[in-house]
Formats: sequence, structure tokens, C-alpha cells
Amino acid sequence: MKLWGGRFSDRLDAAAWKLNASIDFDRRLALQDVRGSLAWADALERAGILTVEERAQIRAGLGAIEAEFQNGTFLFQEQDEDIHTAVERRLGELIGAPAGKLHSGRSRNDQVVTDLRLWLLDHLPALDEELRRMQGALLDRARTDLGTLMPGYTHLQPAQPILLSHWWLSHFWPLERDRGRLAELEARTSVLPLGSGALAGAPFPIDRKVIAAELGFAAVSENSIDAVSDRDFAAEFLFCAALVGIHLSRLAEAVILFSSAEFGYFTLPDAFTTGSSLMPQKKNPDMFELARGKSGALLGYLVGLMTTLKGLPSAYDKDLQEDKVPLFNALDTLNAVLPVLANALEGLSIQGERMHSRLGAELMATDLADYLVEKGIPFRQAHTLVGEAVKLSGRLGVNLDELQPDEYRAISPDFGPDVAQVFSAENSVNRRRAYGGTAPSAVEEQILSAQAALDREL
Amino acid sequence: MKLWGGRFSDRLDAAAWKLNASIDFDRRLALQDVRGSLAWADALERAGILTVEERAQIRAGLGAIEAEFQNGTFLFQEQDEDIHTAVERRLGELIGAPAGKLHSGRSRNDQVVTDLRLWLLDHLPALDEELRRMQGALLDRARTDLGTLMPGYTHLQPAQPILLSHWWLSHFWPLERDRGRLAELEARTSVLPLGSGALAGAPFPIDRKVIAAELGFAAVSENSIDAVSDRDFAAEFLFCAALVGIHLSRLAEAVILFSSAEFGYFTLPDAFTTGSSLMPQKKNPDMFELARGKSGALLGYLVGLMTTLKGLPSAYDKDLQEDKVPLFNALDTLNAVLPVLANALEGLSIQGERMHSRLGAELMATDLADYLVEKGIPFRQAHTLVGEAVKLSGRLGVNLDELQPDEYRAISPDFGPDVAQVFSAENSVNRRRAYGGTAPSAVEEQILSAQAALDREL
Amino acid sequence: MKLWGGRFSDRLDAAAWKLNASIDFDRRLALQDVRGSLAWADALERAGILTVEERAQIRAGLGAIEAEFQNGTFLFQEQDEDIHTAVERRLGELIGAPAGKLHSGRSRNDQVVTDLRLWLLDHLPALDEELRRMQGALLDRARTDLGTLMPGYTHLQPAQPILLSHWWLSHFWPLERDRGRLAELEARTSVLPLGSGALAGAPFPIDRKVIAAELGFAAVSENSIDAVSDRDFAAEFLFCAALVGIHLSRLAEAVILFSSAEFGYFTLPDAFTTGSSLMPQKKNPDMFELARGKSGALLGYLVGLMTTLKGLPSAYDKDLQEDKVPLFNALDTLNAVLPVLANALEGLSIQGERMHSRLGAELMATDLADYLVEKGIPFRQAHTLVGEAVKLSGRLGVNLDELQPDEYRAISPDFGPDVAQVFSAENSVNRRRAYGGTAPSAVEEQILSAQAALDREL
Amino acid sequence: MKLWGGRFSDRLDAAAWKLNASIDFDRRLALQDVRGSLAWADALERAGILTVEERAQIRAGLGAIEAEFQNGTFLFQEQDEDIHTAVERRLGELIGAPAGKLHSGRSRNDQVVTDLRLWLLDHLPALDEELRRMQGALLDRARTDLGTLMPGYTHLQPAQPILLSHWWLSHFWPLERDRGRLAELEARTSVLPLGSGALAGAPFPIDRKVIAAELGFAAVSENSIDAVSDRDFAAEFLFCAALVGIHLSRLAEAVILFSSAEFGYFTLPDAFTTGSSLMPQKKNPDMFELARGKSGALLGYLVGLMTTLKGLPSAYDKDLQEDKVPLFNALDTLNAVLPVLANALEGLSIQGERMHSRLGAELMATDLADYLVEKGIPFRQAHTLVGEAVKLSGRLGVNLDELQPDEYRAISPDFGPDVAQVFSAENSVNRRRAYGGTAPSAVEEQILSAQAALDREL
Repeated sequence: MKLWGGRFSDRLDAAAWKLNASIDFDRRLALQDVRGSLAWADALERAGILTVEERAQIRAGLGAIEAEFQNGTFLFQEQDEDIHTAVERRLGELIGAPAGKLHSGRSRNDQVVTDLRLWLLDHLPALDEELRRMQGALLDRARTDLGTLMPGYTHLQPAQPILLSHWWLSHFWPLERDRGRLAELEARTSVLPLGSGALAGAPFPIDRKVIAAELGFAAVSENSIDAVSDRDFAAEFLFCAALVGIHLSRLAEAVILFSSAEFGYFTLPDAFTTGSSLMPQKKNPDMFELARGKSGALLGYLVGLMTTLKGLPSAYDKDLQEDKVPLFNALDTLNAVLPVLANALEGLSIQGERMHSRLGAELMATDLADYLVEKGIPFRQAHTLVGEAVKLSGRLGVNLDELQPDEYRAISPDFGPDVAQVFSAENSVNRRRAYGGTAPSAVEEQILSAQAALDREL
Repeated sequence: MKLWGGRFSDRLDAAAWKLNASIDFDRRLALQDVRGSLAWADALERAGILTVEERAQIRAGLGAIEAEFQNGTFLFQEQDEDIHTAVERRLGELIGAPAGKLHSGRSRNDQVVTDLRLWLLDHLPALDEELRRMQGALLDRARTDLGTLMPGYTHLQPAQPILLSHWWLSHFWPLERDRGRLAELEARTSVLPLGSGALAGAPFPIDRKVIAAELGFAAVSENSIDAVSDRDFAAEFLFCAALVGIHLSRLAEAVILFSSAEFGYFTLPDAFTTGSSLMPQKKNPDMFELARGKSGALLGYLVGLMTTLKGLPSAYDKDLQEDKVPLFNALDTLNAVLPVLANALEGLSIQGERMHSRLGAELMATDLADYLVEKGIPFRQAHTLVGEAVKLSGRLGVNLDELQPDEYRAISPDFGPDVAQVFSAENSVNRRRAYGGTAPSAVEEQILSAQAALDREL
Repeated sequence: MKLWGGRFSDRLDAAAWKLNASIDFDRRLALQDVRGSLAWADALERAGILTVEERAQIRAGLGAIEAEFQNGTFLFQEQDEDIHTAVERRLGELIGAPAGKLHSGRSRNDQVVTDLRLWLLDHLPALDEELRRMQGALLDRARTDLGTLMPGYTHLQPAQPILLSHWWLSHFWPLERDRGRLAELEARTSVLPLGSGALAGAPFPIDRKVIAAELGFAAVSENSIDAVSDRDFAAEFLFCAALVGIHLSRLAEAVILFSSAEFGYFTLPDAFTTGSSLMPQKKNPDMFELARGKSGALLGYLVGLMTTLKGLPSAYDKDLQEDKVPLFNALDTLNAVLPVLANALEGLSIQGERMHSRLGAELMATDLADYLVEKGIPFRQAHTLVGEAVKLSGRLGVNLDELQPDEYRAISPDFGPDVAQVFSAENSVNRRRAYGGTAPSAVEEQILSAQAALDREL
Repeated sequence: MKLWGGRFSDRLDAAAWKLNASIDFDRRLALQDVRGSLAWADALERAGILTVEERAQIRAGLGAIEAEFQNGTFLFQEQDEDIHTAVERRLGELIGAPAGKLHSGRSRNDQVVTDLRLWLLDHLPALDEELRRMQGALLDRARTDLGTLMPGYTHLQPAQPILLSHWWLSHFWPLERDRGRLAELEARTSVLPLGSGALAGAPFPIDRKVIAAELGFAAVSENSIDAVSDRDFAAEFLFCAALVGIHLSRLAEAVILFSSAEFGYFTLPDAFTTGSSLMPQKKNPDMFELARGKSGALLGYLVGLMTTLKGLPSAYDKDLQEDKVPLFNALDTLNAVLPVLANALEGLSIQGERMHSRLGAELMATDLADYLVEKGIPFRQAHTLVGEAVKLSGRLGVNLDELQPDEYRAISPDFGPDVAQVFSAENSVNRRRAYGGTAPSAVEEQILSAQAALDREL
């Protein structure tokens, strides 16, 4: 069945039918399509297009269809062009003639984008929940690993000592921003297009605000032409998803590094690693590699849709049918990756001693410069003096804390006998007490702040 | 001058210097860098690292540098690696030793991202203003062209009559969503990273909230590692810019079409069209083609940065230096395109009679079906009957309003003598009075709503 | 079944298993996997790892599996991690112990990329065939429509008269370039990675050139580390596919325009157009809109894979598993779109008279300038003089060929009475006889050249 | 000066002029524009449009202009819209009236794409040379480091011993493929569009093949409409450049890893590393980070242009002006990055002993399985047995080569006393002698093959 054709002499070519039909993917909108139709039936009755009885018949039929979708007993037919057609076809089978009245004043143009917005609104809370679960895993790690120091890196070179908890939390906040973006996207998605017709609006006395209230939309669209062609919310979701992907990719990259034999900071649980078909000793961080790898596809979905939208003229063009698959794929990807990573992080063991053993004196070079600063040496000069100490220690083949007091004094008379106390990683982190810093006191404050953020659901 | 090197034996290779140096583009951050440094000097004095006098000297020196930037008298030197180095070098020339104290407890890692956030915050209001000006041009057109009817298109085929004003406004609302996104981006950008050091935080008793207040940031970053590596705000801006680009591209595509000889709806002003070096008769819509074309580059900037971010490990990596050029380019592109399009729209003439002449009876086919619906025929059946009328009129080579009453009655006895009144485009648009529809009453309501939106500045 | 696990204490987490398993999509490589294994069994026998009998058993088992795949009777099991595992598991069921010998010296790393290269090599000829069929449709149109003149456009403004055949052929050559790129890609794909092991090479005396010959590869890879991680051929295919997509998108855009009511040059066949669920009169060019729209997704696949590849370190990383889905999707997209467009073009009717009626005198403005050039006026001056004639005709509200001889002479004394003959579209096209031009003689030559190109199969 | 305007009443708006003008970037095509004009003058003379003397005057004028460009004395004027206009304007200043004849039968549409193709053809050999130099650096390293063994990684986990030379060469071959692609691109770029006019071809008896020969093009375009709108060569170049970027990014990622303190395999030369403004001990691999980071922008250029091309209708649209900047940027990026990386690799020191110390027995686990295979155990069973040995050694806290003979025998009686000899990394690499493998003999063969490839210039 198709919802048009009166004016056509020839049947659609078979290959063209296949290219054109969207039922293979838009069936995921089945429940949303039914819900939208229930609300539309109500609106038509209020507008005098349906009688009370017809509306009741239609609602009963749609209720039965909804049950079929939920039970998995709905039978799609080969000629169902799309989910809207399938539902209307089935409704006709169930209730006969009144089914033909449901599409009055409505177009698939406003219908499909209503369905898609509903679908996204239905799924955003669960995505938010997955993100929160992931954040929760990071926050748990931050609490558990609170006493552990490790080297902090910039340019992948050892930079300064940090708390491992601080590092875990550095991956918490990007997800918090993601959640903020998704919350704002939700508001922009919660705008009802139904009642826009094909592009010009609804011809009957339809009160769209009542429909919006019934379906749970926060607002109604302002312009019917824009309403049927606007896919900003889809593009914005794909951007948000791609950015989540990048955040997971960055975390994954770091976990892969820290799980390498050379770093040896993390040991991944067997239940979240895989082996090699050839090399019996291998234990590979596949889950994190997949998270990193899939961030590419997520960006690809965004590019795909934005390129499709670019340069379309006005109102609805069929190109817009290409909006669904990337949306579905992006959500599925995140829902597949997030819980696995969260669980893997929970089961991960840390090698605290190894991390601590890497906190060589050179990571306190900045502290050494700060030591001079506190004695009144301008920082720039202190930096140069410590650079000389680094160079000297390199030449002598010793660590920075193994240079002799007179060697330090030769570099600058301001180096006193108390210089040794600089080379304590614990002292180093303790000094960074400013808000957001790595000192234990600051990190504990940060944990409270993170918990407060986490308590806010979408 | 460079801010490091004590430990290095060899000079940086000349080509490597060139690849590494960012002064060619980060000089655009000059004023922000000075402002950040002023606030940092204050913070250092409060933390006891600078004396009151040193702070005054530094502030005076920075003030002089700021003036040099504003007057265009600042002299960059070949050895200035980046804007931070240039400013510190010049400060040393102006005030001597105390200049060396300014970088205490600060890293270029937190400094540069503070500059970049400040820069974006400085420029967002003007971008919002350009967007509002563009919206204003569209709203003016909607007011001016209120009496004009035109064919509305879907799939680029004539669909239903609409008001030209309604069409103009369909390009107003996407920009309103853009402004909403930018407003939310502003909040997420207004987070101070300064005081995060290289990655571990500030070692002195720095009160970052005071710095934030001084610089006009709404919040301070929660985690120093995240703070120096977070470029979400840049990616989000590029996404917003790319989406503005797509909206302009869609408008441009439509204007190009409507200005073609075949449509002939719009006449572009000479001052916004160009000619051909070969064909003397040509008058080309170059401005709109450039708007359409540049939307590609805008998407490219987004992809470039997101790909760069993907898979970076933690904290600062030099890759992040690649964040600036796309940001600058994206803003410049929008600022170049928006005012030109706004002015071109203002000067554009419309061919109202030509538009009206295209409102053939077939555009009222839906109204014809609705006519039957109002007589109680189920819409699906009405759709088929009208399809037959369309087919018949095609076979007879007449328009839909030229079929005879008996020919209509042969299709359906429900077609009465009053069917003729359906074929009025005015009646057609008047019927679409539901909120957001194309009826004059609805469009007037929409204009009020648009004006209210426009009155809200960033 | 999985091909590893001896060293693992815990089972893989269920969600991790699902994320990790690739069987849902790599089953498309089934036949290639079997073929690669057949060749590997032969190589192992030559290397003395298999006896002649074992090899025969393995070949028989693989043959049976191949038949199961071809008949659709192969039963996948839930624990089949990927296609390689499924085949080895089934082989064990069929022939017992010798199955366990097949993976000697081989890794899934070299196996999967061998499969994927074979798969692409298997499918490129059919894609080439589809492209040729599409080219054939364009060439047929060029032959059929040889007598038809139409306006040529630049900037979507009428520019100069051209032959419709010339226009059709302008869409032939981009596809010819695509075919050239695919042919070169084929050569780069035809490089055998098998025998590279996990990354270090094969440990047994394997003659890889013999394997290559048996499988039809033109060359063997030079470096085992590169061989298992190289996905250039996949990226290159996605680029080629995206560029095909852009070519189809450009053609589609033009067909959509020319099929609009306002242009009215083309009438699409009913069998390749669709209607509206709401508007009974609509006949929409959905197939061409889908072709245009899907070019976005094709670009997205390319970006997705390239972003995934970016920044991976050496050899095989699991991220590379993300190579298959975009490859499959891209090929499926082209194979779905190409034949539909080809058939739609064949069935399309042209409105030759309408096209000719649009060949107003202003399209001969360049010819008018050339007329002066041939009288010795420098072209730049001629261009200005004709510009004045255009301006005058606009002011008088007449066409360029309706200006009076004295009006022309007032503009330039070089305009003689023979100026009228300039305003013939036929003359205009006839003058452009240089190679590649729109004159009938040149187009006939071009048709021969196109036919010769078309005769070259991949 | 602009090359059009006769028909226009109003001057171009100032901001529109700025948006429209391309002189800021297309001035890079100056020399190509002159060369194309020289050839066009010759063609016009042969066609009888120029006298011999006029042609000589034009050639002399163009020669003077060329010299001005080369000396840097050419003065651009604010009203020069683009490079073509600038050249024609200057020609008029130098030689007067005949200058106005040069543009006969030519359009900026065919002119600009001729210039751009010439420009690319001019610059491809130098890019090829930079790629060869980079390959040469890798090959030199392969020769120098021939005796060094290191762990090979998959999934960033130690996999099997390899030769460092083999690893260096794994980065040689991707660049060889890049060169192959660029060579094929060169052929596709070497197609002359000049003589296509605005879109319809040249109106005078122009022999385009003679022009092609004069300018060094290998072929002439087949279709004038396609010729002015085809930017495939630009997209293909951007793809090639983006893929080079990915190859460099992958190399860079590995060098960054191997230069980390934890791996400690490579020491970068001071001349190619930078320090920190805050941390005096830092020595950062900025050059490699920039190479990795810039691969994002390179991909962005590709996406930008392809998105711009997507959906354009026929022939020339102004959107195509956006082709140049990404092309220039991509070439500049590669030319900036390649020589720096090549030089950095040359100066890099390797820590051979450290690499060798990481070749623990577990890297020979595959060899251990192969040992059993050679005793007739099916590989799959051998893999499981070795997995058990790995698990046992983990439980006992010993290395795989520290398990006792009876412990091995308890796992499988096939483990004999000769098992110890398996745990030699040298034996392991020596066994992988198949073509492309890591055995010294195979790598020496590979070096010869690489040298032969390198000897082939573009």
C-alpha cells in the first residue's frame, strides 16, 4: 500500500521502490507514529472532522496496533512504503473506512518529523542515564584511588605529580558538559511540528498547543515551512554525540597507554579484554580501542547529515529522509560503548607503587623554580636557573635531587640547604590548593562538586 | 625570545621554529592576552608573589603594550614564538626585571585557553548582532511583502499557495535557533581556566574566583587537567557556525533559484550582483553563491578541529595549537557574509504578479480534497478522487479548474456547483489559520512573535 | 567459540562481547574468508605444516562450508565472534582435529584484511559495470537528443545556447574519471597481505607469491607491519565513492531543477516519481533527491574512516574493525542509486520546444561581442558596447534583437545591417566548433570519444 | 578595474566587493595566469583574431608583467577583483589598446581552472620530492638501525620481536602509495580546460591541442561544460594530502610514544623539540604533535571542498571560487611538516639496549606455539597449551622462560628440553623469512625494494 497514486499511470519501478522505501529503518519510529496519530485523531475530533465515535474507533485501532508493535506481532508487508503507511494500512484492516479519515489535514512531512522528535525525546533520558553511570564510575574511581599519586603528562612527557583521582575527574567534567548540551538540545527538540501540513499549515481549526500538551512537547513550531524542513535538532544531536565520542576516545587513548606494558599503571579486567588468535600471551584493550575507533564513525554521521542539509532549498525535500539512520546509529553506538567502558573502569586495577616510582625529581623542576620565586627571584630567571640544573644533572648522569648543595649554589646562591624538601611529590601536589588544583583538599572539594552535578538528572 | 631553553644545548632548527611558532595567527589574541596578564598580576600581588609596587609597574607596562596594540605600533620581532612571548618580551623591555615575575605559577597552557575564551566572549555579541541584523532584514521583508502570494514548493514542485511573508519568516527562525545555541555556548565559554598552571593547578594562594570576576567570567573551571585541554567550546562554536552556514546556504539556494530567469520571482539589486568577463548580458547572484559555497569551508573547520581532538590523550598536547585558525576563519566568514546578504535582501525587488500567475489550480488540489472531507468523505478516498481529476485534466490538457461540473460529478457525486470557489489561492491560504500556518492572520501573529524574539539581545 | 582464551581467567562480559563481536557485519566476507583459507591450506602443505591428506580434508571441509554459505544453510552460532571464528568452528565440526591446524602461522590481522581486499576486488567490476550503464544512459540520451538546443547556464543564469546532448555528456565525463580512479584503486587493492601474521611475518617457509597467484592478487605486500594496518585502499574507495556521489548529486540537482514547473525541460516517468500523501497533484523527483541526499552519507563514511585511522600508532589496533561497515554501506548505496537513475534517465521525456523558446536574444550577447571582435574591435571594448546595448534594451523593455539598426549604430558604428544574423541560437552553437565545444560537429566527435571510453571495461 | 559592468547601473556595494574579490588569495596564481595568457595570445593569432604584431605586443607586455611578479614589483590595486583582472589591467597600462583583445573567446571560467591546474602541476614535483626526502630519511634509518631488535606491538601491547628497521620501513610504504596516487592525480590534472569559454566552447578556430602542447598539458578536456566546473582534481589532491597527513599522524603518534619516558626508545634531538614556559625540565615532541594535529585540518579541507561541490548544478557557479584556499593550505601544510619530520628523524637517537631489554619471553609465546606445531600439534591446541603456560607463569610470578621443564611437560609432553632455545628474540625474527617479514634477510631484500621505489621520481 502506498498513500498516493491516484494521478499516476505507471507503477513505481521495483528498484526505485526499494530505493525510495524507508520502512527498513523508520519502523523504529513505530510507537512514536502511533502516539502522534492518537493525538491527531483527538485534534481532528475537536476540529469537527471526526465524530466522537470515529475518534473512538480510530483510538481503539491505534491502541491495538500499538500492542502489536509492543508484542512484536505487527506484520509488515512488502508494500508498506514507510511506517506511516504501514500504520494507516493496518488501521484500515482493523477498523475499515474511518481509518481513511485520520490523514485529514496532515502530511507525512509534519508527521515524520513529529515522530523523530518524539523518538529523540523518548531516548534522551536513557542516554543521560548512561552518561551519568559513566560519570559515576569515574567518580567512584576518584574516591577509591584518592591516596594515589602519579605523574601528570603534557605532550606525553612527565610534567608534574598529580593525584590519580584528579586525573579520573578530568574525564568526568567533559561528560558533564555533554549532559548540559543534551539538556539544551532536549528543549530545542521539544517543539511540535504537527499541524504544519505539507508546508502551509493545517486547514482545519486545529489547536496545536493542545496537541503539544497531549504529546508532552514544550512548545509549538512558529512557522510551518520551517517546521517540516528543520533538522537542526538532529544535527545538534549528532554533534553532541560526536563530542561524547571524542571525550570517550580521549579517555580510551589514555587508558590504552596506561595499560601498556611500558606504562603499566592500569590492569584491565579479563572480562573486558580479549586475546589473540595467534599470540597466546596477548591481552588486548579492545573495548577502549573500539571506543576510540567508533568516534570516527560518530563524526562521520554528523558530516553526512550536515552535508545532506547544505544547500537544500525550502520546505521538505526527500533528501531529508537521510536524517534517520545516522541518528539511530549514533544513539546505538553510544549506548553500546558507554556501559562497557563504565564497567571496565570499575573492574580495573591500579598499580599505585609503579606510578609512584615514576615520580622522579625532574617532575618537581617547577617546584624548584617556585622555591626560588618564593625567595624573590623573578620566575623567568628561576626557570633559566633550574634549566641549568637540569642540564647539569643530565651531563652528570644523576637526578635533579642528586646534585650536591654546592652544585646548586654554583648555579644560584639562593639555593639553600632546604632545597631537598622540594623533591617530594606529596609536597608538590599539596601546594596546588587553588580551586580546581590537584592538592588533596582541592580534589575533595571537587568530588563534592562532581557529586552535586551527578545528582542533577535530565 | 622564547620562554624556555635553559636545559637545551642546541638551538631550534629554523624550519622547526617556523612550524612551531604561532605568532602569525595568535597575535589576534593580543588584547586578550594583555587583559589576562593584568588580572594575573593582580592575583599574584594578592598571593604575595608581587609587591604592590611590582604589580603597579607591571600594570603600567601592560597598559603601554595594550596601547601599542590598539595604535598598531607594537613591533613584533622575528623571535617572538607566540603572543605570550611577545608580550612578556616587550614588558621586559619596558619595565625590566619585574616583567620576569609575571609568569609565576602560570603556564602558557592555561594562559592561551584563557585568551581564546576571552576572545570568543569578546566577539560573540557582535556576531549575535549580525545575526539579528540578518533576521531584521528578513522580518522587514515579511512586513513589506505581506500582501504577496506565491507558490510554496516541496521537492521543488509546486505544492500549495503560501504568503511570501511566511516564506521569508521560514528563514528567520533557523537563525533564532542559532542565536539560542550561541547564547548557551557563551555560558559554557565563560569559564575561567587561568590558575590551572600547566595541568596541576596553581602553586600559590591564588583566588581564582576573584580573577574570574575581574575578567568577567561567570565561573571557574573545576579541574585543572581538563581546563588546559578542553576545547569543547571551540568545537561547539564551529558547530554553531557551520549550522549558521547551512541556514544561509539554504536561503541562498532559494534566492538563487527565485532569481533565475525561469522562476523570475526576485530581482537582485545591481549593487549585489556581478557580471561576466565574457558574456555582457550576465547578472549573477555571486553573493548568494559565495554564501552557499562557504558553508562547505565552515563544515570543514568543524571536522578539522574535531579530528584533531579525537584520540588525544590527557592534558595539553601541542596539537591543540590547531584550534585557533579555524575559529578565526569561521568567525571572519560569518562576519563577511551576513551583512552582505542582509543588505542584498533589503535591496531585492519582488515580482508579485509573476508569483501570483504561477498559482495554478493544481496548487489547490489539497483544498479540493479538503472540500470533499468537509462533505464527510474520508480523506484517503478524497485524495484518490482528486488524483483522478488531476489525471483527467492532464489527459484533456486543461487545468483542474477547467474541468466541467459534470466531469467532476462523474468522478464523485459529492462535487457540487460550489467547487469553483476552491480554486482561489486567497481562500487556500486563508484556511490555514492554525498557529504557524500561512494564513494572513497567522502570519501577522508570527511577525509579532518574531519581533519579540528579535528584541532579545545576547 | 572464540580463538583465544587459554590465558584468561574470566569470561568476557556479555555487553563487552556484543561490542567486540563483528559477526553481524563481517559475515559478508564469508566467501572471501573461505577462499583465503583454501589458499592458506595449500601454502601450509607446501611449507610442510600440513600433510597432503590434511590439506585435502581441510579443502573438502572448506568446500562444504562454501556451499553452505552459497545455499544460505550455514548456521551461525551466538558464540561466533567473527567470520573467521565461525568458519574455523564449522570446519572443526566437519573434519575434526585437522581443522585446528589451519590457523598455523596466520593471524586474524592478516586474514581479515586479505578478506576485505578480496571482497572489494570481487565487487569492483560490478560497480564499474553500473557506472558504465549509467554512462551508457547518458550517452544514449546524447545520441537521442542530438537536435535539441537549450540555454546553458552559469550561476544558474542563462548564459549561452548549447546542445542538450552536450549537456548530457557533461555528466558522462565525471563518471569516466571515477572509473579511472577505481581502476587505479583496483591495482592498489590487489596486493596480498596474507602471510604477514600478526605483524612480524610468517614463521614457516611460505611462498607468498604463489598464494597471491592462486588468489588472483597482482602483488604481495612489502612489509608485514604495514600490511596488517594499511587501510588506504578502504579510504581511497570511500573517497572514490563519495566523489561518485557528488557527481550524481550534481546531476540530480540539475534534473530536479529542469523537472520543475518553472524550467519545465524534463518530464520524469511516472515509474520513477512518487506522489504526496496529502497533495493529490504532486509528482516528485524523489529518486534524484535521494541521490543528492545520499551523497552526504557517502562523504560521512569517508570522514568516519579517515578520522578513525588518524593518529593510530603502528600495526593492528582494534579500531581498524571499524573499516567494514562504511565500505559495505558505500557500495550498497551506489549500487542502489545508480541503476535507478540510469533507468529514470532513459524514461525521461524532454520538452524541446520549451527549451528552444527560452533561447532569447540575450543569450547571444557574447556572439554580438564576437561580431564586433571580428570587425577588429578589441574584445574588452566590444563587451562594454554590448553591455550598453543590454542596458538600453532593458530601459526600452525590448529584447536585444528588437533594438533598431540605428540604435545599434548609435552605440557603435561597427554594428552593421548584418547584426540580425547574430541572434540565431543555431549559429551560436555552430560557431563553437573547437574541440570539446557545443557545435554539433564537435559533439558528434565527442560522442565517438565517449563511446570509445565506454568500451573500455575495468 | 573590473572586466564587466557595461550593463550595470549601480556600483557594487563595498562589502559585497570585498566578499566577492579573490585577489587576496588567487594572486598565488600570477605566474600561471601569465603563462596561460601567453599561450592564449598565440592561439588567437593562429585563429586570426590577433595580428602577428598584436601578438608580439601582448607577449612583450606579459613578459614584463611576469618579470614584475618575479621581482616582487607588481603593484596590485585595490580595484583588482582577481588575478586575471590585475593582469589584464596592467597589460593595458603597458601596451594600450591591444590588451583589450586578449580576452577574446576566453572566459574567466576556463581561465581560472587552467591557472589552478597549472599551479598544481607546477607544485606536484616538489611535493613528490619532499615525500621522497621523507622516505629517504626512513630508509636511512632502516639501514643505520639494522642490527636493532625491538618489541612489535599490536593493540599497543607487546606482540612479537621485530627489527627496528622493519618498523621504520612500515612507514616508508604508505608514503610510496601516496606518491603513486599523486602520480596518477598528475595525469588527471594535466588536462587543458582553456578554450572552453564560459561553458559552451571557443567561438574562433582555436586548436586546443596546440595550446595544450605549448603549456605542457598531456590532454585537452572533452566537454566544455564539464571543463569549467570540474574540480575533481582539486578534491583528489585534497584527499591525497589528507591521507599523507594521516600517514604522518600515525608515524608521529608512534614517535611520540616511543619518545616518552616510559617507552624510552627514542631520544629526539634538541633542535627539534621545545621546552615549557613553566616546567624547566620539559623537552617536548612538538613537531610530531603538530604533524599529528594538522592532519585534522587536512581532512577538514577535503570535507570543505567536497561539501561545497555537492549539489551544485551545472557548469560554473561562483561557489567554485572556494576551491583555492584549501588547495593552497593543504600544500603549504605538507611542505611545512615534511622536511621538519625528515630532519628530526635523521637526528633522532635510539636506545637499542632498552628496546632489547623489553623483549621478554612472553613475546616468544607464538614461537612456543609454533614449536609445538612443528612437533605435529594442531596450532589451535598449541595456542591453548601456551595460554595455560602463560597463565601458570602469571600465577607463579615468573617469566615464561623461567618455568621448569617439568612444569612445561605437565602442560604437554611435547615440550622437550630444547624448549629453551625458543626464547631467543633473534631466533624469533630469523624465523620470519617469508617475503615482507621481519627476518634480517627479508628486511635486507625489502631495503633493496624500497631503494628501487625511491629511485623513481615523479
